Amino acid sequence: MPVNLRIPGPTPCPEDVLQAGAKPMMNHRGPEFRDIMFRTHTRLQTVFQTKNDIIMLTTSGTGGLEAAVANIVSPGDRVLCVSIGAFGDRFTQICEAYGAKVTKMQVPWGHAANPDEIAKALDADPSIKAVTVTHNETSTGVTNDIASIAKVVKGHDKLILVDAVSSLSCIPVLVDAWQCDVVVTASQKGFMVPPGLAFVSVSAAAWEANKAAKSPRFYFDFKRHKDSLARGETPWTPGMSLFFSLDLALDKLLKEGMENVYARHASIAKHTRKQIKSIGCTLFCADPKFASNTVTAINAPAGIDTNKLVEILRKEENTVVGEGQAALSGKIFRLGHMGYVTQKDLDDAIQAVKRALAKMGAQVPA
Amino acid sequence: MPVNLRIPGPTPCPEDVLQAGAKPMMNHRGPEFRDIMFRTHTRLQTVFQTKNDIIMLTTSGTGGLEAAVANIVSPGDRVLCVSIGAFGDRFTQICEAYGAKVTKMQVPWGHAANPDEIAKALDADPSIKAVTVTHNETSTGVTNDIASIAKVVKGHDKLILVDAVSSLSCIPVLVDAWQCDVVVTASQKGFMVPPGLAFVSVSAAAWEANKAAKSPRFYFDFKRHKDSLARGETPWTPGMSLFFSLDLALDKLLKEGMENVYARHASIAKHTRKQIKSIGCTLFCADPKFASNTVTAINAPAGIDTNKLVEILRKEENTVVGEGQAALSGKIFRLGHMGYVTQKDLDDAIQAVKRALAKMGAQVPA
Repeated sequence: MPVNLRIPGPTPCPEDVLQAGAKPMMNHRGPEFRDIMFRTHTRLQTVFQTKNDIIMLTTSGTGGLEAAVANIVSPGDRVLCVSIGAFGDRFTQICEAYGAKVTKMQVPWGHAANPDEIAKALDADPSIKAVTVTHNETSTGVTNDIASIAKVVKGHDKLILVDAVSSLSCIPVLVDAWQCDVVVTASQKGFMVPPGLAFVSVSAAAWEANKAAKSPRFYFDFKRHKDSLARGETPWTPGMSLFFSLDLALDKLLKEGMENVYARHASIAKHTRKQIKSIGCTLFCADPKFASNTVTAINAPAGIDTNKLVEILRKEENTVVGEGQAALSGKIFRLGHMGYVTQKDLDDAIQAVKRALAKMGAQVPA
Repeated sequence: MPVNLRIPGPTPCPEDVLQAGAKPMMNHRGPEFRDIMFRTHTRLQTVFQTKNDIIMLTTSGTGGLEAAVANIVSPGDRVLCVSIGAFGDRFTQICEAYGAKVTKMQVPWGHAANPDEIAKALDADPSIKAVTVTHNETSTGVTNDIASIAKVVKGHDKLILVDAVSSLSCIPVLVDAWQCDVVVTASQKGFMVPPGLAFVSVSAAAWEANKAAKSPRFYFDFKRHKDSLARGETPWTPGMSLFFSLDLALDKLLKEGMENVYARHASIAKHTRKQIKSIGCTLFCADPKFASNTVTAINAPAGIDTNKLVEILRKEENTVVGEGQAALSGKIFRLGHMGYVTQKDLDDAIQAVKRALAKMGAQVPA
């Protein structure tokens, strides 16, 4: 029986997508790869719902976040960093590493950011140049209302940089309609491709900011990538096998239809939230309205060490789930349901959790 | 007939190495992947001939070069950048992007750097902190004598940062014996793995410099990688499929034996240099003593536009070779012979070149 890989990324990939990645190498500056570059760029624009340029980087999601900062933020720029969990903290740390003056809005883990609070923070400090925010916080299973947040940020004429690593292609992200300036995602979540590629959309306002941005950058430099993309190339050797996989994965996503993809994620997530209650667990997300459609963070029954639970699931149930991160270590566990996933995958995982909890002596409903 | 891919990287990969990359995803922080991380790190140390830490980055070779600079060089540091071609220029540009005060030693393309000239430059300016140098210059087919250059640089108690992207694992690089501080290589050349991973060795002196280095960095930060590696992890999601391939490719390299791998490269290169003369071409490298064992840059017979030659080879001979870069565009072409390569691959390519040259009306010996 194959492992039921239910961590919130890297996610399982369809067998044919993996096989596409095993194609022989070719010239990364030749006509065949050029076609792949143009084709994937155009289809990424469809998935991003944008006409913006999309920069395709050989790096993981964190590299994509760093690219967003290095290309937009200069040392001394005031940035409002909205964090609702571990990945919001990471985006904040990157801004700090690049010498930004950071105003951190720390939202308690389990909660979503409040757009009104963001408006207040922007009113209070007109020197703020940009706002960083996580769309879907993988550490807590909470999805921010980026539409409303972007409305506030753009209403204040600031730049908005969005971490959409664990949302885009699973949950609607309307990059143009919401006026998101920089949106970062990566290959190993909803795109059903192994890790190693990040995709970053760049708005006209972001390009303006990029011209003036003074942080050092070379590998991640947006302008060099844009200039190369005009020729169907990347400035440096790309992760070609990952592009081969992406090419097919985009076919599959668009063939299913993005509305159907979103509906599938919503349905599986709703089912998951319902089922975990039936085994005596509760949702970590404070307000079900903001519960994520890609990852569910779960409070185990009282007295259960979730790190031990995760270990039993791995060793005895062939089921790999996410642990709690940072202060949540041992307190929650997380089920990923993004990308190449069916309701049965989650039913199987939840039954495995139920058996493991029973072994651990938890009170599990019959 | 499969394409004879003779560009100097990405290079062909063995079929089983490609298939290893198509294995299902797993937890990148689980025990199975941890084993792969530890195992590849140890075997990379063997190939690097070093006891130093080796940082494994999900990025291409250029990202590895940037990591070297971002982790060692601070804005305002004086750096001697030795360039013998396009990739030496790139290393220089990265230093400039990070605000280094660059003293550029520009060696005419086709020539190797002279260690005595480097000694003079270091004598002339004691403020120089570090030297960047390319081991094997892919754009010109010239290999620098890093042993002698490192002796000079370390004799002056400076740091030496080496681009070994197209040499390491094909040509001996004795990281510890030569006292190289930072040595960068990548997966898609001699390692026979698709592009997307870079490996960077870091000496004790480089770690000391790293502590004081003030350039912004996060994704590429050596310290974060070292701390994670102690647990068999990477700080950010790694390019897992590439690590699966690397794991097997290292098996194959070490099974063949590095001395045999070096001898194979030397023998094929020598044969290639001899054969190109037999078809009326000459070596671009000014002094055969410095001719590369991984890529041969070739002057076509008088009157031949090498860009046209490259196109004919691709369209009519199923053979993909490298064009001349920058000022050498149309003037030279390049044959890669690194990694997964046999003498027959080169014989086939050279016969294809011979036929193409004849079609173009060149005087080709019978």
